[in-house]
Amino acid sequence: MFQQFFTPAVQHTLDLMGIFVFAISGALLAVRKNFDIFGIAMLAEVTALGGGLFRDVVIGALPPAAFTDLGYFTTPLCAALLVFFLHPHVERIQSAVNVFDAAGLGLFCVIGTTKAYTYGLGLTASAALGLATAVGGGVLRDVLANEVPSLLRWDRDLYAVPAMVGAAMVALCIRFDSLNPFTAGVAVLTAFVLRLLAMRYHWRAPRAWNRRSSGVEVDEAST
Amino acid sequence: MFQQFFTPAVQHTLDLMGIFVFAISGALLAVRKNFDIFGIAMLAEVTALGGGLFRDVVIGALPPAAFTDLGYFTTPLCAALLVFFLHPHVERIQSAVNVFDAAGLGLFCVIGTTKAYTYGLGLTASAALGLATAVGGGVLRDVLANEVPSLLRWDRDLYAVPAMVGAAMVALCIRFDSLNPFTAGVAVLTAFVLRLLAMRYHWRAPRAWNRRSSGVEVDEAST
Amino acid sequence: MFQQFFTPAVQHTLDLMGIFVFAISGALLAVRKNFDIFGIAMLAEVTALGGGLFRDVVIGALPPAAFTDLGYFTTPLCAALLVFFLHPHVERIQSAVNVFDAAGLGLFCVIGTTKAYTYGLGLTASAALGLATAVGGGVLRDVLANEVPSLLRWDRDLYAVPAMVGAAMVALCIRFDSLNPFTAGVAVLTAFVLRLLAMRYHWRAPRAWNRRSSGVEVDEAST
Repeated sequence: MFQQFFTPAVQHTLDLMGIFVFAISGALLAVRKNFDIFGIAMLAEVTALGGGLFRDVVIGALPPAAFTDLGYFTTPLCAALLVFFLHPHVERIQSAVNVFDAAGLGLFCVIGTTKAYTYGLGLTASAALGLATAVGGGVLRDVLANEVPSLLRWDRDLYAVPAMVGAAMVALCIRFDSLNPFTAGVAVLTAFVLRLLAMRYHWRAPRAWNRRSSGVEVDEAST
Repeated sequence: MFQQFFTPAVQHTLDLMGIFVFAISGALLAVRKNFDIFGIAMLAEVTALGGGLFRDVVIGALPPAAFTDLGYFTTPLCAALLVFFLHPHVERIQSAVNVFDAAGLGLFCVIGTTKAYTYGLGLTASAALGLATAVGGGVLRDVLANEVPSLLRWDRDLYAVPAMVGAAMVALCIRFDSLNPFTAGVAVLTAFVLRLLAMRYHWRAPRAWNRRSSGVEVDEAST
Repeated sequence: MFQQFFTPAVQHTLDLMGIFVFAISGALLAVRKNFDIFGIAMLAEVTALGGGLFRDVVIGALPPAAFTDLGYFTTPLCAALLVFFLHPHVERIQSAVNVFDAAGLGLFCVIGTTKAYTYGLGLTASAALGLATAVGGGVLRDVLANEVPSLLRWDRDLYAVPAMVGAAMVALCIRFDSLNPFTAGVAVLTAFVLRLLAMRYHWRAPRAWNRRSSGVEVDEAST
């Protein structure tokens, strides 16, 4: 079982931390979109659990962890309550939230990759599902809030790439039979640090070559 | 088998009634969005079957009921045809549609909760899936129509809460071993009446505390 | 096994061609929406694999083909790279892309229907899943790009109908026990030609009857 690099208790705590910070980001978007308390709670749940739910449905791990572990379900509710009552304070510490979100990203891409591999998927597919675990919740959050997923927008700092690197590192470790708590921790840390650097230096990915009159095309596309 | 409070024939009829009224709401939105007849039929199908499909995929009840019961598949098509030919009349009786939709909401939250429990999920998870069964189709409808789900908007009358109450009542009945046709009926009725009252008195849920300059933030979020 | 009308190698090649052209359409939309290279790659993946992924999750064919066949995963990436570097040229040959997309549509509705039937679904449900296989990726593409699915819009040439006809022909062939490489090929060809004709003559489906003041209602719906 590759899933348990860490003792179960440690891993569960890390899981819940990742779920919590993802839920915070969902709840904050819900407040900005002017949703009511139930909308805030639902967007927090979807953001926090959506990626893992997608992974579990795809690999056939049914019922998904999101519905079998009560802690997974209640943690986003706590995050929603916190944001509901204290959101001006939470927004003020947005940079702290971003750091936690980066930690969640690193953690989830590694956990997702190993869990998919445990269920018999190939290395490439496992890495793809690790990426989906890490970014899926945020995509669902933006779709439900009726916005273009920030993951896909060129004017946001790199988000998918750090998760891809982390997931690829885990896949390589499995390939060379050297996945252990230490190498898994290195993968988490690499994704985490890459995301922090991307935010610090505003790293962005290139758009398509030879684009001219982009403004016009965007207008056209958005109408 | 908790699923059969009622005789199978009665439950199937209730199911089809719930599917029908949900399909009507999807078809009406499609007409308002100016979709063609196939768009109307598809939005009717998605609205009517989406919530149950999500539940069945999550609990591993594959293939889902939506694809094994021909009645589930054809009922939304009938609703779509009805709206296609008679939509001015259907809109005129919008309040009657709302009453049926409330009945569908009550029915589906109870059916969803018991079916999830039958497949081995915990009580909280079962109630959550009951809620998802009841409201999932409407969320999918709004996402496909490219609108903010009305479920999440603060300026709509309470919709999730009645379903939550109904699902929670079923979970409590199961917990205390007292689920039977009568208590299940009471749960359906409670959710139904709560939704009717919410529409009658425009009950709404609170938004986040300490919100200032909400207009500006909404504008910013919607651009 | 109904799935293998053709030799496995031939069918795999046809599959990859369909995936490739669907991926091109996703990547082109991503370029128009101004996404970066990763956004282009992800939209290409989702468009190409989304329909089949949905079908496999629903029929319980887990893990889905999209995650077990490396070719399925890498083909959209090649399409994304091609569009990234050559998109002005690809757009110039949009009509060629449309022809390939029509071929993909015909192919996927037939493959989807037979695969669903192989997994034990009824004829109507199989045809519905064949349709979902053919059009699902495009719907997901439009939802992620935050647009109204072009499948549902009345001002687009018929897209679902050719796939419906192809899927229905396969279901009828199965019903009368006459599904073989030849009849399957006829079904693919029928859907393909119908789609080409729909584009050539701008066939459109009717909207709801008795619509008055449609402009006003659309404005109201879009706010």
